[in-house]
Amino acid sequence: MRTIEWRSGVVVTLDQTVLPVEEKWIEMRSCREVASAIKEMKMRGAPLIGVAAAYGLALTAYHSKAETEEDLMQELEKCAETLRKTRPTAVNLFWAIDRVMNKARTIQGNLEELKKAVVSEAQAMADEDVETNRRIGKHGAKLLSNGDTVLTHCNAGSLATVDYGTALAVIRAAWEEGKRIKVIADETRPKLQGARLTAYELMHDGIPVTLITDNMAGYVMSKGLVDKVIVGADRIVRDGVANKIGTYTVAVLAKEHGIPFYVAAPTSTFDLSKRSEDVIIEERSPDEVTHFGSVRIAPEGVKVMNPAFDITPLKYVDAIICEKGVLTRKEFLRLVKEKV
Amino acid sequence: MRTIEWRSGVVVTLDQTVLPVEEKWIEMRSCREVASAIKEMKMRGAPLIGVAAAYGLALTAYHSKAETEEDLMQELEKCAETLRKTRPTAVNLFWAIDRVMNKARTIQGNLEELKKAVVSEAQAMADEDVETNRRIGKHGAKLLSNGDTVLTHCNAGSLATVDYGTALAVIRAAWEEGKRIKVIADETRPKLQGARLTAYELMHDGIPVTLITDNMAGYVMSKGLVDKVIVGADRIVRDGVANKIGTYTVAVLAKEHGIPFYVAAPTSTFDLSKRSEDVIIEERSPDEVTHFGSVRIAPEGVKVMNPAFDITPLKYVDAIICEKGVLTRKEFLRLVKEKV
Repeated sequence: MRTIEWRSGVVVTLDQTVLPVEEKWIEMRSCREVASAIKEMKMRGAPLIGVAAAYGLALTAYHSKAETEEDLMQELEKCAETLRKTRPTAVNLFWAIDRVMNKARTIQGNLEELKKAVVSEAQAMADEDVETNRRIGKHGAKLLSNGDTVLTHCNAGSLATVDYGTALAVIRAAWEEGKRIKVIADETRPKLQGARLTAYELMHDGIPVTLITDNMAGYVMSKGLVDKVIVGADRIVRDGVANKIGTYTVAVLAKEHGIPFYVAAPTSTFDLSKRSEDVIIEERSPDEVTHFGSVRIAPEGVKVMNPAFDITPLKYVDAIICEKGVLTRKEFLRLVKEKV
Repeated sequence: MRTIEWRSGVVVTLDQTVLPVEEKWIEMRSCREVASAIKEMKMRGAPLIGVAAAYGLALTAYHSKAETEEDLMQELEKCAETLRKTRPTAVNLFWAIDRVMNKARTIQGNLEELKKAVVSEAQAMADEDVETNRRIGKHGAKLLSNGDTVLTHCNAGSLATVDYGTALAVIRAAWEEGKRIKVIADETRPKLQGARLTAYELMHDGIPVTLITDNMAGYVMSKGLVDKVIVGADRIVRDGVANKIGTYTVAVLAKEHGIPFYVAAPTSTFDLSKRSEDVIIEERSPDEVTHFGSVRIAPEGVKVMNPAFDITPLKYVDAIICEKGVLTRKEFLRLVKEKV
């Protein structure tokens, strides 16, 4: 079952803000609705918001009343602008928008052809995402041994992608190969994607999962309960990996305990012309920290920091697992050099 | 304003489970009520539950209908047994119970004298706690410089003691000396003592505090926003410090970033005949992790770990601040050797 689907002019997705208590599918019919759903994190996860953005452009094309290709291109540019403003950190969003817009610009046919091209590019990207994730899983599974316990942070699963996931793809692939893997999931405050989404996905698949609070990561590692760490990524730059806040904390702990730390992400997450200092870290509402739903858990008016991401320097990353294979840190650095 | 008070046969305390939303004072009139309040964490913090246990014995003595000293001693022993079963990790609980019981055993007078002795021993311990904390503050303040930002975990403040706190005593004392200190408070999942109690206390005193989720600790350190870390302790053994879950994670991060890591605790927390492996780590209800109040935040039936404490090996601890002064790790180790 895919996390996002195109149904002739309607994009359907699972509202991730109400999982696991409620499984509520929402329908989006316009670029604006897609942008809102991304902003409100009804859809989240770098690969998923990339495909969602592509579908946002597809909705614009599909429902457009424009009478010329130029008018439609203007509508698409406007939609692209709206989507670009939703979330600044994950690069897949920008990559996906650029890909669809570049495709649109190459169309030299009539208005209908342009519309069709935009829709089918978005659909192709959704299909490719699943294929990419399957490959990530297959490559990464080699790194896991029978009996391993893998700690993961946030949700880099089906729900962060169109299907199958990235970090969880590796775990799923190893599981499908018959390796008995166990997972420890960090709850991942403030939005609790680990507790709400990763635990939900893995229980659904019958893969053993134990939930911990983020601050127990050091404890479980010190007790020898973690063999490997695998996380996803929102943007991989020349010198580090931007991912959900708390990833860096886990990486430092893994290093201290001699536990391999792997990042699983498609190459669409690579942004090798950039460095850490170029990445905009999204600062989200203080309410995410001070409230739980409508329940206040901190004094009124308390000052809060709420960066949604952090950057893990490459020295903490043992390998990056992408659809092309497993890149050790050394191999990744060679790739970075080639891209100068 | 004290966190706990004796009012002729009634022990009054602030219910810490409903702070900061509600300031609700509860009255306890029996040992059983005190034991329940400790178990349910209406009172928490090693020094506070020590004094609370002493008051539990005082309530037994005060309200006893025993007609002989022997009968009263039996009642006290029964109360002590009930209190000892509440929480296993903090040593102050056991220390306080032993101290009152030892005092009781030395009384060679009549029944009334025994009753009075138990009550006044408990009261003396409450007064001593405040004096001890003032001294901890004074000694520790020397370690803080004007302009420092101190990260603290959980709540080692007034609310964890009778008054003034331990880790927060150091911050308060430095502040009172005119040093402009800022505090970063970890929210401290699962029970959120940082968000609910530390933020509340510091805002009350006008000391600048910024709240973060536990998994942001690495991020703020990497950004150079933390000069020192100070935490409390539930039990200090020969080779490590047992304290609220997540303390070890913070300690590893502090070491990685070259940030001094201090523990502030009274010597009643020292348990120098024991080693880490002797400390029982309390495992609390999974509901604390899977629920927020009545709201479920994880799939039904998910497996959970919920250790309430962890142990930070001494190598991560730069100094222990107690009422006798600041012990560097080296000095502490010398003390440990002397105690063989």
